[in-house]
Amino acid sequence: MTFTVDGVHTDCYVHAASEALRQLVDPTQGFLLTDEQVFAAHPLLFNGWRTIIVPAGEAHKQPTTIQSIIDQLVRHEADRSSVLIGVGGGVVTDMAGYAAGIYMRGIRCGFIPTTVLAMVDAALGGKNGVDLGAYKNLIGLIRQPEFLLFDTTLLATLPEQEWRNGFAEIVKHAMLFDVDLFVQLEHCGLTGYQRDPAALESLIMRNVHLKYQTVEADPFEKGPRKKLNLGHTLGHAIETTHQLPHGYAISLGMVAAARLGEELTNFPSGDKDRLVGLLQQIGLPVQLDVDWDAVLQLIRMDKKRKGNDIHFILPKAIGEAVVQPISITQLTDLIRQIF
Amino acid sequence: MTFTVDGVHTDCYVHAASEALRQLVDPTQGFLLTDEQVFAAHPLLFNGWRTIIVPAGEAHKQPTTIQSIIDQLVRHEADRSSVLIGVGGGVVTDMAGYAAGIYMRGIRCGFIPTTVLAMVDAALGGKNGVDLGAYKNLIGLIRQPEFLLFDTTLLATLPEQEWRNGFAEIVKHAMLFDVDLFVQLEHCGLTGYQRDPAALESLIMRNVHLKYQTVEADPFEKGPRKKLNLGHTLGHAIETTHQLPHGYAISLGMVAAARLGEELTNFPSGDKDRLVGLLQQIGLPVQLDVDWDAVLQLIRMDKKRKGNDIHFILPKAIGEAVVQPISITQLTDLIRQIF
Repeated sequence: MTFTVDGVHTDCYVHAASEALRQLVDPTQGFLLTDEQVFAAHPLLFNGWRTIIVPAGEAHKQPTTIQSIIDQLVRHEADRSSVLIGVGGGVVTDMAGYAAGIYMRGIRCGFIPTTVLAMVDAALGGKNGVDLGAYKNLIGLIRQPEFLLFDTTLLATLPEQEWRNGFAEIVKHAMLFDVDLFVQLEHCGLTGYQRDPAALESLIMRNVHLKYQTVEADPFEKGPRKKLNLGHTLGHAIETTHQLPHGYAISLGMVAAARLGEELTNFPSGDKDRLVGLLQQIGLPVQLDVDWDAVLQLIRMDKKRKGNDIHFILPKAIGEAVVQPISITQLTDLIRQIF
Repeated sequence: MTFTVDGVHTDCYVHAASEALRQLVDPTQGFLLTDEQVFAAHPLLFNGWRTIIVPAGEAHKQPTTIQSIIDQLVRHEADRSSVLIGVGGGVVTDMAGYAAGIYMRGIRCGFIPTTVLAMVDAALGGKNGVDLGAYKNLIGLIRQPEFLLFDTTLLATLPEQEWRNGFAEIVKHAMLFDVDLFVQLEHCGLTGYQRDPAALESLIMRNVHLKYQTVEADPFEKGPRKKLNLGHTLGHAIETTHQLPHGYAISLGMVAAARLGEELTNFPSGDKDRLVGLLQQIGLPVQLDVDWDAVLQLIRMDKKRKGNDIHFILPKAIGEAVVQPISITQLTDLIRQIF
């Protein structure tokens, strides 16, 4: 299947990665970019390909790593006809997309996501880039990859925490757009999908659709794409303050958004309880002694940078959410009152 | 007037720069980027604007300078609503366009070119970026600026050599597309335009049109935009080998292309003599003891990187040129035979 964002086509394939990659890219033109962990976990995938390996982890999603990728492309005499393929989680696909976007003013690029989070969220939609010191994604582009290749067998080696990270975004999609998916998640649970490859593949492709539907409608995040930030406004600040894995912080952010929804959008208490139950079933945290002063201070600084009200995403019901501008003062008051 | 490249609009204004800039950009959102020389030559232009100043010269068109620009944008709390305006020659506008393109995944950007070369060529068309060591423009984007502001009074302080550099590209446009312009250039000479501000302004805007006509038709240089490389294939290699200013090398490159045209496209000898005469009148070199072995070796290396025949631009007559694929062997033989 093919998605089209801002006039650019991204072809999606669901197939064994090694085999499909050789069909998609001429090995004399292709370069694989991956990190040490992914390379160690799937050595055969890189067999016969020129491979650029970077250190694993968000700490290395920095301009110096991009510089080293570019240096290696130059050393290998990559030219305008070369294709850079990011194989890994969101950190790797972000850097592959960005490096491909700036090398010789843009070469072809594709992704093979190897985590649930990358498959259903991070590798999709064309946002790429690196952090600058502590500033997340300060440098980057919006540029669509030419192809995405989904191979759920690559998830066999994924640690449990990474499954939960990915499922936080899946719950988010269900909360935003798809009550049937929410019911299915309640029914199967994380372990249900882990045990059933066909169900897992279909779950992932359903989420790819949900995300691309939103991105196609609003490539530059002027309107509906903002909804994908459900749980993220508070979540990002909680992630930084409490040093939590992304999905864990988003889980807490969604619970907080649900409680704000109870106040502001008549989000039913019963729906909030179902959300909490589902997140718990997946193994995600739903309660934490959040340092709200520190979290709000971070949001205040961020707001100062962006210079306007927060576009807060609030659930109205399971499968439906609204974007609501909230001032930082109103948010502070509400949080003090609720928590 | 407005040009549209790949769906993106670039507004062009011909006006006193300081005054127009305040109309176009809110000073609380704008950042000017310039180099030390331009800042020293036009201090009043920067009055009241937050200004980022980089060292002058192509040697500084490198990733480290971009890093320092980004660091300063962060320090000044530039956000998604900020506008970066490049004020200077092609090196400055290239870096402004690129930095704006990657900061927070792209902020607004405009250019005020301050050299003839930048006004008629370098600042136009959306190609931007930096060199990487000795590799020219290895990193960059194709991204159109939001506006271009032309103020020919800024040329008052331009050194003679820079005038000649710019006029080499003007002669190129005339050779490619506009026999009437060629005749006008023969008639007025460089000094004629330097003495007549109205004629100069109209000359520059005519060249802006000629370049944008080509870029609009072919934003990604798949066909007709290649013609803008007249004189540049050999010229770039001559520039590197003999350490010449850009326009001087392009002048020699155009003379060489004209002689190849006599052999391959029946370019008339009389037209070649007129080209040589015009370039001489402007003060550009038309003869040099070129080290052809070194020049061809450079082109050979470049070709190896690009992996196909050279798309050589040959004049057919004054005002008309063709793109002709030539193998490196054929080019070597021809040059040995002619020179």
